[in-house]
Amino acid sequence: MTRERKKIARVSVGVLDEFLGVPIQVLDDGFVRVIDYMGTDSSIVQAARISFGQGTKRVHQDRGLIRHLMRNRHTTPFEMCEIKLHVRVPMDCWRQWIRHRTASVNEYSTRYSVAIDAAQKTAPTEWRFQATGARQGSDGIVPIELGKNLSSKEEALHKYSRDVYIERLNCGVAREQARKDLPLSTYTEAYWKIDLHNLLHFLSLRMDHHAQNEIRAYAEAIGNNIVAHWCPITWEAFLDYRLHAKVLSRIEWNVIDAIVQGDNQFAVRLAEDGGLISYGTHGLKKNREREEFEEKLRRFGIRPPWVTAGNNATSE
Amino acid sequence: MTRERKKIARVSVGVLDEFLGVPIQVLDDGFVRVIDYMGTDSSIVQAARISFGQGTKRVHQDRGLIRHLMRNRHTTPFEMCEIKLHVRVPMDCWRQWIRHRTASVNEYSTRYSVAIDAAQKTAPTEWRFQATGARQGSDGIVPIELGKNLSSKEEALHKYSRDVYIERLNCGVAREQARKDLPLSTYTEAYWKIDLHNLLHFLSLRMDHHAQNEIRAYAEAIGNNIVAHWCPITWEAFLDYRLHAKVLSRIEWNVIDAIVQGDNQFAVRLAEDGGLISYGTHGLKKNREREEFEEKLRRFGIRPPWVTAGNNATSE
Amino acid sequence: MTRERKKIARVSVGVLDEFLGVPIQVLDDGFVRVIDYMGTDSSIVQAARISFGQGTKRVHQDRGLIRHLMRNRHTTPFEMCEIKLHVRVPMDCWRQWIRHRTASVNEYSTRYSVAIDAAQKTAPTEWRFQATGARQGSDGIVPIELGKNLSSKEEALHKYSRDVYIERLNCGVAREQARKDLPLSTYTEAYWKIDLHNLLHFLSLRMDHHAQNEIRAYAEAIGNNIVAHWCPITWEAFLDYRLHAKVLSRIEWNVIDAIVQGDNQFAVRLAEDGGLISYGTHGLKKNREREEFEEKLRRFGIRPPWVTAGNNATSE
Amino acid sequence: MTRERKKIARVSVGVLDEFLGVPIQVLDDGFVRVIDYMGTDSSIVQAARISFGQGTKRVHQDRGLIRHLMRNRHTTPFEMCEIKLHVRVPMDCWRQWIRHRTASVNEYSTRYSVAIDAAQKTAPTEWRFQATGARQGSDGIVPIELGKNLSSKEEALHKYSRDVYIERLNCGVAREQARKDLPLSTYTEAYWKIDLHNLLHFLSLRMDHHAQNEIRAYAEAIGNNIVAHWCPITWEAFLDYRLHAKVLSRIEWNVIDAIVQGDNQFAVRLAEDGGLISYGTHGLKKNREREEFEEKLRRFGIRPPWVTAGNNATSE
Repeated sequence: MTRERKKIARVSVGVLDEFLGVPIQVLDDGFVRVIDYMGTDSSIVQAARISFGQGTKRVHQDRGLIRHLMRNRHTTPFEMCEIKLHVRVPMDCWRQWIRHRTASVNEYSTRYSVAIDAAQKTAPTEWRFQATGARQGSDGIVPIELGKNLSSKEEALHKYSRDVYIERLNCGVAREQARKDLPLSTYTEAYWKIDLHNLLHFLSLRMDHHAQNEIRAYAEAIGNNIVAHWCPITWEAFLDYRLHAKVLSRIEWNVIDAIVQGDNQFAVRLAEDGGLISYGTHGLKKNREREEFEEKLRRFGIRPPWVTAGNNATSE
Repeated sequence: MTRERKKIARVSVGVLDEFLGVPIQVLDDGFVRVIDYMGTDSSIVQAARISFGQGTKRVHQDRGLIRHLMRNRHTTPFEMCEIKLHVRVPMDCWRQWIRHRTASVNEYSTRYSVAIDAAQKTAPTEWRFQATGARQGSDGIVPIELGKNLSSKEEALHKYSRDVYIERLNCGVAREQARKDLPLSTYTEAYWKIDLHNLLHFLSLRMDHHAQNEIRAYAEAIGNNIVAHWCPITWEAFLDYRLHAKVLSRIEWNVIDAIVQGDNQFAVRLAEDGGLISYGTHGLKKNREREEFEEKLRRFGIRPPWVTAGNNATSE
Repeated sequence: MTRERKKIARVSVGVLDEFLGVPIQVLDDGFVRVIDYMGTDSSIVQAARISFGQGTKRVHQDRGLIRHLMRNRHTTPFEMCEIKLHVRVPMDCWRQWIRHRTASVNEYSTRYSVAIDAAQKTAPTEWRFQATGARQGSDGIVPIELGKNLSSKEEALHKYSRDVYIERLNCGVAREQARKDLPLSTYTEAYWKIDLHNLLHFLSLRMDHHAQNEIRAYAEAIGNNIVAHWCPITWEAFLDYRLHAKVLSRIEWNVIDAIVQGDNQFAVRLAEDGGLISYGTHGLKKNREREEFEEKLRRFGIRPPWVTAGNNATSE
Repeated sequence: MTRERKKIARVSVGVLDEFLGVPIQVLDDGFVRVIDYMGTDSSIVQAARISFGQGTKRVHQDRGLIRHLMRNRHTTPFEMCEIKLHVRVPMDCWRQWIRHRTASVNEYSTRYSVAIDAAQKTAPTEWRFQATGARQGSDGIVPIELGKNLSSKEEALHKYSRDVYIERLNCGVAREQARKDLPLSTYTEAYWKIDLHNLLHFLSLRMDHHAQNEIRAYAEAIGNNIVAHWCPITWEAFLDYRLHAKVLSRIEWNVIDAIVQGDNQFAVRLAEDGGLISYGTHGLKKNREREEFEEKLRRFGIRPPWVTAGNNATSE
């Protein structure tokens, strides 16, 4: 292999250096800011190439190699880049964030110091209705008058909670105990350090439309405003092959095959065996997996064979 | 939530208990055997349901819930099952195996003990040619006469290496140093303990057709002979939604959309922009990503708009 | 090596099976209960012995081997045991707990379900003063009258917070948003699965006297009421060689050496160089590291050479 | 807390930049070279201080804070530094190295490329005898004539193995299969990226005198030649509080207490109960834990009460 064993200089990313330390605002009083980083797109290529040895350099161009790695889930080279962020985030949101176990974390301690004097405020136009149908998530904004009422009561609760907290401190109660009834909306701060592979995994889950709005706002700030500048080729490959990719299950794949072969009856049977189709007293039962499949079929210009004039998927 | 706080009994899997400790042979002298396990399909359901609280039990049936978790990559409940295997495997293969960092391992030590007196033998009918086109992998079996010759030389090398090893030991050389020139084919043994989520990840990579035959043989023994009995519902969901699923990239998705909308020209342009199509002096350049895409299109009954009578993908 | 390749039965621990699923109460309304486990002391021995190969069985007895492993930080065999707990714990305490990244977790979701209707209550006799001198921790109990007042205000705050939460839900606000101002004292529940090595690490930190009382109560319940029964030999070794062991730094070691050699002057110089001794305007400065060292010296029957009639360590 | 939210510059370490990329030789043909790094001593302080909030800056100086963190095992701030090395190491040694699971790794692939044409050679003066008494390790150098003989046979084996490998490749055998009988001494290369906390853990095990000479040579190169320059304050604290620290078990601590109190009889009983003392037909049995304890007692100027004129620890 090539013996690259001479003195080198550190890799740096000019565009990222431009805003190192500058906070990107998220929510009413949160932020993310880049503190430091290691590596960039070229570091991924460098690490991947140690596997391939010399001769293969001619074959792949950098961009093609990175896209190849992303497409085929060769994930280890993406671990060769690392980033360290300083974030300010409501504890409620942080509770979700911290579930990702592959990062290094140092958080502001309310045992050592008085809690940050800020709780996330919800504006009258930001209160969301519970989503119907799904078990989680939200859907639609409440009417403005109700919103005003909720925000005003929120403000009162924040003030009350803070007063109780301060009173405890003034009585000499230990900080570790006084904090126990602070609202989950209280802001905390942390250094959060993670490698690019694990960061992309975090983003694929938290930029998803199933993620809660609040953490999604942080994920989008990190993805679109930071990673897109730090490792632009990787970011584009991530959008193409991960975030905006679609999966076809073995069942879907086989059903499509039967339809294209012209055997609709077999296609329907495969869908039944795969649990996509079942019937209740009012006909075809509602099934989210099938609905998503029908959406894909429409994209391929294929009409689902189980959808007939008098038998549509929305009954029951 | 339901307060299930009464005495319980351990979960066990009768069919797995039947062959606990019994080796499943792999390669000429290797094996995997189950030593212990924790949990089964129902443990995954149990863990998932703590998220959903009581009321949702009626909605989901166990099978549906597990398939829902697998399809939507809710991976944490699968971590609630754990298995411990005793494996015997050539060091060469173990070098790949051990790269999976999420397992607990205790390996036979050739510092403490004399190395296992067995190296993996290759039968005359098992020598494989280097794959052409790809940079890794093998393709086809060498002629039997050549195979015999290779096997016979292998045997001689194994004997020679062992003799040198034994001679060193007889001279009093430290085991930790005497072992240094043993062939990579020398068998080692280990206890290997891993949770089901990480095991499935291991299997998705090592049962793949890109994986080397040797480790693939172990992966298939573990998947088909062990996991399929241990957690049968999860195993089926894994085959449907992971191992045999197909991914469509954002580019592919958009190209299909354009084709179905009837705009072939736009479809070709999207494919060009996405790097799937480029032209050399002999026409359309070879491109593996496009070849895989064309295979998918065929499955959907769609003719790639860039494939014309005089312009096929195999030129150059 | 010994080819133990016959059918085996699962390892079980009778005394643990006796209280499987039975909650052990912690705090006013929390608990820990064992759901499942894998392995016991003998599994650690089994895993360690694969390293040693045959022949060494005679040398070590099980107890001796486990103590040898613990003393010399051969930690991997302890990973071969696994336990799964169901815990109910205030979110404030859970925030510390979840920082241990080596466990598998499924937590009750307040996106999916209405939050558990319980917040940890502090009795009038449980309010603690802020520790002086240290930057964290608590020290002493507040007077009963003050305690009564604090508890009564806590109750009012809990009620107020809950009312706001319920009102939001009644207005149709999404659960994921309604929960944002619940107090940190709100109880949550989780399945928590971890291997013995990482559990002991958790316990060594959380049974320590620096740990906050609340999480310490959980750690003690897990250690004394569960691990002590599950793996009794390991537990004893852990107490001897980890939890109740003392460390002597290189500096301390060298200072002792000089004192015993009779060279007090050199001992003092070493202590100065190591930062244990420095002087302010009022003499010897307060230094916690030196205070801890002096405590150790007293145990060895050695008088610190820097402590003279007119020069004690408490000045300044 | 202090709102440090302005533009910043990346942290760099001039002395490390001086030899970035320059290989440090290890063994006959191996090396380690620094490719990139993130952070330094000041980054550890920065991360620790987010816990303490403002106001505490005055109390601690940087050096004192880092030593405090190391002494009290507050390990997370040390995770905030990261380093990436390029290493060249015999596979035999790499097998031990890779057992540390907390690093990111990209290794030279002998599936993609022809194996590196170098195996670690042992000079006639480097062959070590098996340690007696211990089950692992080596002790002393074999006579030069024997060494010459062993080295000459090693050279022949290396040549033979390589010839078989090359012949297989020439016959068209797949690289992934041809490599199977290469000696474990064959060199491999890898990028290895790890955070400082986990690197120090690696070094504490691999710089230990129980570690095999070969990996110890790498550990010492990394520790003394790299980390010592990269994070000098942390390195010194590591040597003082980790690498060269001594542990006293609960048993030892209690025995010392009894001796100093003048109750030798009770001290002996405690030592017996703790398993340090037991008697065979020839008197006091050999026991390594007791021998280490006696060494510590000597350091404290304390005579073990069980050592009498006619009863010394070396019998049996």
